[in-house]
Amino acid sequence: MSILIVGTVAFDAIETPFGKTDKIVGGAATYIGLSSSFFTKNLNLVSVVGEDFPQTAIKMLQNKNICTKGLQIKEGEKTFFWSGKYHNDMNTRDTIDTQLNVLENFDPVVPEEYKTSDFLMLGNLMPSVQKTVLDQMSKRPKLVVLDTMNFWMDLFLDDLLESLKEVDVLTINDEEARQLSGEYSLVKASKVILAMGPKYLIIKKGEHGALLFNNTEVFFAPALPLEDVFDPTGAGDSFAGGFIGYLEKTDDLSFENMKRAVIYGSAMASFCVEKFGTKRLEELTQNDVDSRLQQFIDLVQFDISLV
Amino acid sequence: MSILIVGTVAFDAIETPFGKTDKIVGGAATYIGLSSSFFTKNLNLVSVVGEDFPQTAIKMLQNKNICTKGLQIKEGEKTFFWSGKYHNDMNTRDTIDTQLNVLENFDPVVPEEYKTSDFLMLGNLMPSVQKTVLDQMSKRPKLVVLDTMNFWMDLFLDDLLESLKEVDVLTINDEEARQLSGEYSLVKASKVILAMGPKYLIIKKGEHGALLFNNTEVFFAPALPLEDVFDPTGAGDSFAGGFIGYLEKTDDLSFENMKRAVIYGSAMASFCVEKFGTKRLEELTQNDVDSRLQQFIDLVQFDISLV
Repeated sequence: MSILIVGTVAFDAIETPFGKTDKIVGGAATYIGLSSSFFTKNLNLVSVVGEDFPQTAIKMLQNKNICTKGLQIKEGEKTFFWSGKYHNDMNTRDTIDTQLNVLENFDPVVPEEYKTSDFLMLGNLMPSVQKTVLDQMSKRPKLVVLDTMNFWMDLFLDDLLESLKEVDVLTINDEEARQLSGEYSLVKASKVILAMGPKYLIIKKGEHGALLFNNTEVFFAPALPLEDVFDPTGAGDSFAGGFIGYLEKTDDLSFENMKRAVIYGSAMASFCVEKFGTKRLEELTQNDVDSRLQQFIDLVQFDISLV
Repeated sequence: MSILIVGTVAFDAIETPFGKTDKIVGGAATYIGLSSSFFTKNLNLVSVVGEDFPQTAIKMLQNKNICTKGLQIKEGEKTFFWSGKYHNDMNTRDTIDTQLNVLENFDPVVPEEYKTSDFLMLGNLMPSVQKTVLDQMSKRPKLVVLDTMNFWMDLFLDDLLESLKEVDVLTINDEEARQLSGEYSLVKASKVILAMGPKYLIIKKGEHGALLFNNTEVFFAPALPLEDVFDPTGAGDSFAGGFIGYLEKTDDLSFENMKRAVIYGSAMASFCVEKFGTKRLEELTQNDVDSRLQQFIDLVQFDISLV
């Protein structure tokens, strides 16, 4: 069993009310990989960086059992860079700078031994690039999860709709679900979006939790109420990594198990935001995760015999 | 066992994206009473209306086992009137008109037989008026729940802080919790507010659910994802009515039972918003409530053995 992760590996510079960072390692695939590495040792990465990307960071990923054979290193080019500033509510942010660099002409090449990966996580990228990876697989993965964002809906909606026909799980946030469906009610939105192709839809609501829909069922996982959210960057990707990592580990695609995967995803997101960048994810222990899971159980479990 | 409910009985005129109403019967005490009437037959109402208030509406309350002996009817005066318009997101609204009328000089008089009520629900009113009722009780109720709003925090914060020393449960929304505490994080806000007096704090987040805090524990109840929210008016009061009604019925003030009460409150709020005004609450059946409870269970329950 293995997971192929496609997405950005990047530099971020982040400012929040709690402080700011210089260029630190970030990117969707980095967060997804670190998060899912808690659950499985069989991780394959397809991404691209420039020659400015530090060997120590690549080593760090390898130490987490993330195979970097599919990570292209472009000589003479620079790594994708994003810089943003979060507002006080931590739910909204301004992009200060985006330098596509190596991402501009990213043409993902899936190594031969990755092409039979059982799980495929298409991290947030241009829809046509995501599609290229899916098309290179030599067998259809058991589960294809696709993450995207409003930017691609604005610019490449047709490409996105084409990809959606082939994915099992779509993860987007509440505003994106509204934009994609044209429905304000998330329940109505889910019906419209599931009719586009995905069998499952996960709507991420940040500090307000996440909803998992299929055609007949709905499950809600809260976000853990935290004293402080230091840096929300990567929370959604950490969620996705925990979700697909848990599914790979348990090899059970029932709705009941997807519920558990959503809870594990929420737990990984709750860790991610506790420190800047990937720091908290890198240092996670089994004890940390177990006690965080217990917090989720205590937070929502109740015992009612109907009166 | 009995509940004394204090709050407004009013006329509302409501506009939402789904339509608009002429003057219909509303008010915090009306919603609280109707909601808690599902759980108990021992309801005492203290409020005030003008001579324009219809006898049929009073009869409707009585038919729900709400004693109206404490409902003052002011001859020659008019009932409190509020008119508002909800925006598309249903989370924000504009007040179009507020006519205090009888509320301007409301001096609540608690009938002798109400003074030993076991549960006291202080619906949203001027803090000094809420205090007057508490002071008239001949024995300290088992549980005092107080609801308030930002308006009173702006104008009568000292009075409110005085009352908070004597209540068991405070219910406010997330913005109000932030305003009252000066903390953005709701976890931090809860600590500041619990230090003001209340043993329990319920933070209502509308479509994003509700949080119950005491000094050591936290519980989260989601709002039910609905296809349509027709009219959010009274949802918070329906929540409070379900919460206190369930506690009266079960006579168990443990945190475990308060969790259940929060779920029942959330269920009552989910019904309230399905039709304009009090209509849905008036017609509720046991079957309706049982199957709604099952929806809440399905929505959040999961079964994890830690991996």
